Order: sequence, then C-alpha cells, then structure tokens
Amino acid sequence: MITSSDNSQLKLIRKLSRKKARDEAGLFVAEGDDLVAAAVAEGWKPEVLLWAGQDVEPELLDRVSQLGSGTRVIGVYPQRWSDPGGDLSVALHGVGDPGNVGTIIRSAHALADGPVLIGPGTADPYGPKAVRASMGSVFARPPGRGEATGTTVALDAEATDVLEPIDGPVTLLVGAEREGLPADVVESADVRARIPLRPGGPESLNAAMAATLALYVMSSRNG
Amino acid sequence: MITSSDNSQLKLIRKLSRKKARDEAGLFVAEGDDLVAAAVAEGWKPEVLLWAGQDVEPELLDRVSQLGSGTRVIGVYPQRWSDPGGDLSVALHGVGDPGNVGTIIRSAHALADGPVLIGPGTADPYGPKAVRASMGSVFARPPGRGEATGTTVALDAEATDVLEPIDGPVTLLVGAEREGLPADVVESADVRARIPLRPGGPESLNAAMAATLALYVMSSRNG
Repeated sequence: MITSSDNSQLKLIRKLSRKKARDEAGLFVAEGDDLVAAAVAEGWKPEVLLWAGQDVEPELLDRVSQLGSGTRVIGVYPQRWSDPGGDLSVALHGVGDPGNVGTIIRSAHALADGPVLIGPGTADPYGPKAVRASMGSVFARPPGRGEATGTTVALDAEATDVLEPIDGPVTLLVGAEREGLPADVVESADVRARIPLRPGGPESLNAAMAATLALYVMSSRNG
Repeated sequence: MITSSDNSQLKLIRKLSRKKARDEAGLFVAEGDDLVAAAVAEGWKPEVLLWAGQDVEPELLDRVSQLGSGTRVIGVYPQRWSDPGGDLSVALHGVGDPGNVGTIIRSAHALADGPVLIGPGTADPYGPKAVRASMGSVFARPPGRGEATGTTVALDAEATDVLEPIDGPVTLLVGAEREGLPADVVESADVRARIPLRPGGPESLNAAMAATLALYVMSSRNG
C-alpha cells in the first residue's frame, strides 16, 4: 500500500498531466472504473494500475486525479497510434478543445471504421479531458497520425455544395470551430461541402457536432 | 470606474454563479465579447454591463469571471423562457452536463425552429458553462419549459426502430448519456427510435451528439 506522495508511481501520474511528459514517455493516464474497464475489454495492459484503498491511500490517489471529484482507480497505459485507413475516417486540423477531440474519437468509433487523425494545432487525444470524453473509445480505436486516405472531404461552412454520401474510402477534414480549416487544406481537398443549417441560425456548429453529423451522413452510404 | 470588490454589481455577478441565486433573481451572467455581441444582435438589454478598464478595474472583473481565463466584459441579463412549440423541438430529461445542454441549444438553433425544453434533472441552461457552450444561441432561442408538443419521439439506444423523418410537429425526447430516458417518459412517448450505430462500437453517443444527429434526421424532412 502506497502511503507517501513521494512514491514513484504517483509522481509518474502527476508528471503525465503535462503533454510534454506524455509525449516523451509515450504514456497516458486513464481515471475511473469505466475507462479502466474499457482498457481491459480491449486487451490493453497498464504500466501502472492503482486502486484506492488497495494499492494506495485513497486521499493520495485523489490528489493526483485530474478530474476534480477524485477517483477509485487510475491506470497508466502506453500510447498507441493507428495508421491512416478505413472506408471512413476523420482528420482534425486545429481542433484545440480536448473535449471535442475525445468526443469525435467516440463518434468515429460509433459511426466509422477508420481512426481519427490528429493534425497540427489539435489537442492531445491522450490528455485527461480527451480520454475522459472518448468514454473509452480511445482504447478501442486509437487515434492516428499521417496523411488522410481516400477522397478527402473538407467540411467548410462557406462551401456551395451540401455534404452528401460519396462512394469509396473517404476522410472527412474537420477544422476549428471559428477559424475553420486552413486555406491550403481546403484547397488541396478533393471535395468541399457544408452541412445544411437553417437560415438565420448560427453560421457553424461545434466542431464535434459537425464531425458527428458528417460521419452520420457518410455512414448512411451503406444503410 | 469600480475599484472595490465590495461593489454591488460585482457582488451580484458573484452571487449569480449559484443556481439558487439565478432562480431567485431570474437573472444570468454572460461573459466575453462574443456573448455580449450575441445579446446585442438579438435585442437583449443587460441589467448590468461591465467593460474591463472602462467600467471596472480589469483585475476585479477577472476575479468574478467563472470561465478561468478572465474576461473583457460581463453582462447580467434577465432570463427568458420560451413556450413549447414549433415544427421541431427537443425536450431534455436528466441531461446533467451543462456543456451538453448549451451545445444542444446551439444545435437546435442551427437545425430546428422550436425551443429546447428543460426537463427534470437537467443542468441549468443559464449557468455559465451552458451559456458559453450555446455560443450565444441562448439569446436567439431561449430555452423552454412545459410539455412537449406534437409527436413525441423518445431516443432510446435499445429501441427496435431506427430514427426516420416523421411528418408534422415533432419533439425529440433526449435523456442522460448512461441512464437514458426515465421509463415513464419512454412509455408515454408516441415513437421510440434509435440512431443507427456500427456493430461493435459504443452502445450510445454523447447526449449532445445524439440530440444533434436526431435534429439533423428530422430537419432533413423539408430538405
């Protein structure tokens, strides 16, 4: 039983709250029963697994928790990165909100067969908020790195064409909520399309909503 | 220029961070240029409007900010509540996350003509996180109270039928992410339907994702 906050495993967990430390160690932290259960279900082996009251004093575990309310269990896992591919995937550019990144990983897991590719300016999918928002989908479908595959479809609120199902492998390109996709990404995309919104309403949707709707439109190809 | 944190307007803003105080006063707080601009665009008059450096010392305004990074402007507005109605609206039951509530208000503003009805166990749409997540849609389309109108469609991950467009006025019933809708709400709904997800993926979507997808499916009725 760990009884001191000087313990090396607790120190590691604390350190992994910083992106730089996560990048260097190639590790990340998952908090809570649900996430640890998701890891087990997907066959991930933790580097560290600490249950409150069994492996560590509950108060010490709460103190290294990143999620506010404290936790019953914390696991440390090796990061995995998927290769681009699949019939349907998403590539993110400048999506800075970690909750949105995690939510999109979850939606892609529910609606697509390919990974979510993490592009420049995008929040770390292995940060605590992103892992939490993925609700464990980060274990089932690790995020990816690399070039978008198949037909690239830039989601662009100012596009003339409305998004419609497209045959063959597709990668949806999703940008930041306000700035949208970088101009060079839009220009080099095969297709540029918008999600149809009511006139008089907001000009754009939350990035996670836009990605989820676009995934739904594309996933209905086979339906 | 306000130079003391004892000022009554600053005290009011601080007090309104609590739901009970918001309910009693019938007021809420909006922080930041974008939200204040949205209020102006929709013709709302603030009870209090404080610009940093002009009406109040910046540090004092930052200290009453609920959003962490400080702010340039804070407004206090009277709450407004819409009546149920419209061709397409949403009723929330037990959606406890304020970010989800605000996001659904934004999505409904983008995809529907009716209000988001706030049911039991649902986060206050006038709390700071919900107002922020609505990105100003709370001003354009105030949340509602009261009974769902038209055909009621319970979103239920365990339903046999897949969600499809329905003619005539519709209210989508959306529950908490895990618990789903209360049994009596599902039983008294006119229709029970699920959003089609890939086999082997997560069993459900984030509540805001589910509501947004369902709004999209229904809004395509006229498309």
